[in-house]
Amino acid sequence: MIILGIDPGCRISGFGVLKKEGSAVMLLDYGDLRMPSSHHLSKRIGQFHSFFSEKINKWNITDVALETPFLGKNAQNFLKLGYLRGILYLLANSHNLGLHEFSPREVKQAITGFGGAGKDQVARVILQLFPRMKAPDKQDVTDALAVTLCGLWRNKNQPLLAR
Amino acid sequence: MIILGIDPGCRISGFGVLKKEGSAVMLLDYGDLRMPSSHHLSKRIGQFHSFFSEKINKWNITDVALETPFLGKNAQNFLKLGYLRGILYLLANSHNLGLHEFSPREVKQAITGFGGAGKDQVARVILQLFPRMKAPDKQDVTDALAVTLCGLWRNKNQPLLAR
Repeated sequence: MIILGIDPGCRISGFGVLKKEGSAVMLLDYGDLRMPSSHHLSKRIGQFHSFFSEKINKWNITDVALETPFLGKNAQNFLKLGYLRGILYLLANSHNLGLHEFSPREVKQAITGFGGAGKDQVARVILQLFPRMKAPDKQDVTDALAVTLCGLWRNKNQPLLAR
Repeated sequence: MIILGIDPGCRISGFGVLKKEGSAVMLLDYGDLRMPSSHHLSKRIGQFHSFFSEKINKWNITDVALETPFLGKNAQNFLKLGYLRGILYLLANSHNLGLHEFSPREVKQAITGFGGAGKDQVARVILQLFPRMKAPDKQDVTDALAVTLCGLWRNKNQPLLAR
């Protein structure tokens, strides 16, 4: 299982790639995709598709993990998130990937043991689990790794030994 | 200008293809894509992408017309509509198509002269404009043709002579 977790956003999308090897978990890749807001949305969607299509091919991804979205104050942002999720569904279908979705609460529960944890707390746990990781500027990356890890754990219910 | 108009839906998506030739408008294609609700959403999104990708290639489409969505009672349906719209944005980007969006009110206004017109009224006008068209079972098709026509008209502000 080589899993790609994504925290999609129209300007910044965090991602992480984890591989399970025996009882260990390897951090293969992580970072964020930044798309200039000056670009038309259809162009950004094209960039988003190319970027993750390349990641899937590069790392031989087998599974994708996402958080389920919730309707916030801004319906247009919710809709735009739908655009990006549609692209990820398309990629999951065309590359025959397993698709795992978790509520924000489930992810926080899995990572910190507390469903109401803040983003800071999630980030601290992720940075502890992967000590060789360079602390990212943005919590989009640690959020993405949290959902990636949740996908990996939930699938097998095995304890984590991070490398 | 060869324009594809789409009324996307997770089960039924109506579409129409119109071509402008001088002062005439030719109806090249119309119909609906039906996707079984038993299929997982990611599979349906794959079908949706393939279907419209083929239409774009077959008819050398230059432009796409869509209605802007509005948040109804069901946030999940709104989100799913976002998935399909994301695919259309991706196709517009990868095929370098012009993208035209209109509010439901603008479309009704353009077709019937009245922004508060019902779907029946829109369907009647469309069937009058294209008398050789076989009356479709579903208003998804006439709705799609209405937005297609709106895209064609709005682009050039020319009067319609339907063939």
